[in-house]
Amino acid sequence: MTDLSDLPASLEVSPDGSVTTPTGWAAGTAACGLRSGSADDLALVVADRACTAAGVFTKNRVAAAPVEASRKTLESDSQHIRAVVINAGVANACTGSPGLAAARDTQEAAADAIGCRPGQILVMSTGLIGAVLDIRKVRRGIVSASSQLSGARGVDAAQAIMTTDKVPKYCSVQVHDAAGSYSLGGVAKGAGMIHPNMATMLALITTDAQVPSDTLQAFLATAVDRSFHRISVDGDTSTNDTVLLLANGASGVQVDWGSELFRRALQWICQELALAIVSDGEGASRLIQLHITGARSEGEALQAARSIATSPLVKTAVAGGDPNWGRILAAAGRSGAQLDPERLRLWVGSGPSANALLVRDSVQVSEGLEAAKRAFSEDELYIRLDLCVGEAQTTFWTTDLTHEYVSINAEYHT
Amino acid sequence: MTDLSDLPASLEVSPDGSVTTPTGWAAGTAACGLRSGSADDLALVVADRACTAAGVFTKNRVAAAPVEASRKTLESDSQHIRAVVINAGVANACTGSPGLAAARDTQEAAADAIGCRPGQILVMSTGLIGAVLDIRKVRRGIVSASSQLSGARGVDAAQAIMTTDKVPKYCSVQVHDAAGSYSLGGVAKGAGMIHPNMATMLALITTDAQVPSDTLQAFLATAVDRSFHRISVDGDTSTNDTVLLLANGASGVQVDWGSELFRRALQWICQELALAIVSDGEGASRLIQLHITGARSEGEALQAARSIATSPLVKTAVAGGDPNWGRILAAAGRSGAQLDPERLRLWVGSGPSANALLVRDSVQVSEGLEAAKRAFSEDELYIRLDLCVGEAQTTFWTTDLTHEYVSINAEYHT
Repeated sequence: MTDLSDLPASLEVSPDGSVTTPTGWAAGTAACGLRSGSADDLALVVADRACTAAGVFTKNRVAAAPVEASRKTLESDSQHIRAVVINAGVANACTGSPGLAAARDTQEAAADAIGCRPGQILVMSTGLIGAVLDIRKVRRGIVSASSQLSGARGVDAAQAIMTTDKVPKYCSVQVHDAAGSYSLGGVAKGAGMIHPNMATMLALITTDAQVPSDTLQAFLATAVDRSFHRISVDGDTSTNDTVLLLANGASGVQVDWGSELFRRALQWICQELALAIVSDGEGASRLIQLHITGARSEGEALQAARSIATSPLVKTAVAGGDPNWGRILAAAGRSGAQLDPERLRLWVGSGPSANALLVRDSVQVSEGLEAAKRAFSEDELYIRLDLCVGEAQTTFWTTDLTHEYVSINAEYHT
Repeated sequence: MTDLSDLPASLEVSPDGSVTTPTGWAAGTAACGLRSGSADDLALVVADRACTAAGVFTKNRVAAAPVEASRKTLESDSQHIRAVVINAGVANACTGSPGLAAARDTQEAAADAIGCRPGQILVMSTGLIGAVLDIRKVRRGIVSASSQLSGARGVDAAQAIMTTDKVPKYCSVQVHDAAGSYSLGGVAKGAGMIHPNMATMLALITTDAQVPSDTLQAFLATAVDRSFHRISVDGDTSTNDTVLLLANGASGVQVDWGSELFRRALQWICQELALAIVSDGEGASRLIQLHITGARSEGEALQAARSIATSPLVKTAVAGGDPNWGRILAAAGRSGAQLDPERLRLWVGSGPSANALLVRDSVQVSEGLEAAKRAFSEDELYIRLDLCVGEAQTTFWTTDLTHEYVSINAEYHT
């Protein structure tokens, strides 16, 4: 759904790349037995030198132990991070002080394995809520993963951190700057934040550019705001949601806040991973792109988008292939965003231009109905709504709400 | 689910009463043909004299024509209302100026029929969005309904305004005050605000007490806030939601802001009608009562309650009979309400005491799991969550989210 034609020629996108594509990065994986089955459930991603690092964490007040541990680590020193440990199977959330101890023990185990301080390790977990990480299993996994670190194993890392994901999620982009070339690469997991007790979205992005940690944090916050924060499957925010960005500087290219190319590259990576998550949403049969225009502010455009994107009435209508415009207008109307209730305009389509006018001056345009019905039966649906009170706009992605969603989430048992 | 033992002896509840139970009230109904089938689809409720009146309307900025018309009428004179016209089948929402004209024509037709000014008539509509009311049909219906007004037809009125409701909703309460006796009666429609294009909750409450209109408005706002505003089936707010309260003073008993009995009686009526709506929620198999305690303020208790009540993850877990406490804590955590993430306590049960302790200090109590599983398999589920940061509390009602919900809302076609 990303529009590649928007990207400048100096950004070279690679769908096969991942966190180990940038110079000086390696990954290893292991099967610790944190979940049933023999598949890998732990990934260790290691830089060849100390990195600057940035993180965006869940806003949920019930934050998991690994979130607390990584946040604290970055607060005390975000300039010497060496590695990230990610495990699947156990979220280590709602686990009290034993959970925090397990997160700290994970940092220690990784520090021992690669030869650095525990304060140079970040951790992420995804899986069952309420269960504490078995640190003996994790320690064994870290030792095994660290013994086979390789620059060719980034995709293995993407695979090891999957929970209910149907496909691994990874990508990279090479940037050809006046000062030289560098890369960014990412892996992510998440099937739309919807799965029972595994409701987590994790992403790790690496680069070999050299970026001061404050600048890195500012870049990441902006990019996350326009990607991971603009997707929704069911409006639920996990206790574990984390996005990390690490820069080892191995390319020798210095990036500062003025670098438009770095901003675009990071934005592309985040959006690509976010769309991969929403497309993989369990029970989702259609991907929906909402484009809100004519808002008083970007914040209000976002309010309207979020209200539509999380409305069960809108999402079931899309599942049923029904261009039920009244539900879309009603969801925008209750969002709190200012709008002109007499002049609303709504277009739908199966491409980004969303060119079938279905509502004009808040009243249905009958000529648009046939085209709308066709658009509502495609795999990708584009909806554009003009609030008619300003110049601000935003884009947001969501999915439909199907029987399969209910099955997955009702039939799971704690 | 209402606890009658809470009511003082001077309030005498009658489940068979309705809007025509108070003295001086009559109702008539008619089949106008606004929807398919030959059932009545219009109700006219008339007082024997001018009434003071109060109204609470949808906060949706895309408000329907009848909402605009009734709101304007009350703003210009809320002391001489004579009657209310309610129609089902057509919501007269998103209909522009023809819709507003149709609402005004309805007021005129009713004024002609009962002999008063159009400014003495209030209107409510529910049904399809996007279709304008056919005023010829409405006019015929009003003439027919007005020719057979009777004090025995309040329940017929409740039936005429049903859309996807499975049962008509009505009740009344008699108040024995030191100054004399009077009654309140109500009718309502709504099947959990969930049905396609008929997503509306309407309620009309009448009384023969004598209440100044400002006082009436204050009483109604408070009662609605603690009843209709504390239920949710899917978080969607309709374009047509309206609650009206009319007082004709026929009992001769004067009520002022200090009257605790009137407050309690009105509160009971609103809560009874609100619970009837949520219980009738389409696709709902379980009614859920949330009791949030230990909040910093009632507003924050409400934030937490609303976040849990509208979480698809929580609602599908209840549908599946799964005591998935992690989802409940996570929903509270992301609500924005202050809470102590280390000390959360959660009880569940099949009665208002909700006495099985399932979570203590944010960690599962294994002894509570069996009782919790039993509670999650009952028709009515009570959940109590202590946020552990204050003294404020609130109660909220919702339903589970089932396959039937998706079927109803996905398989409907515009």
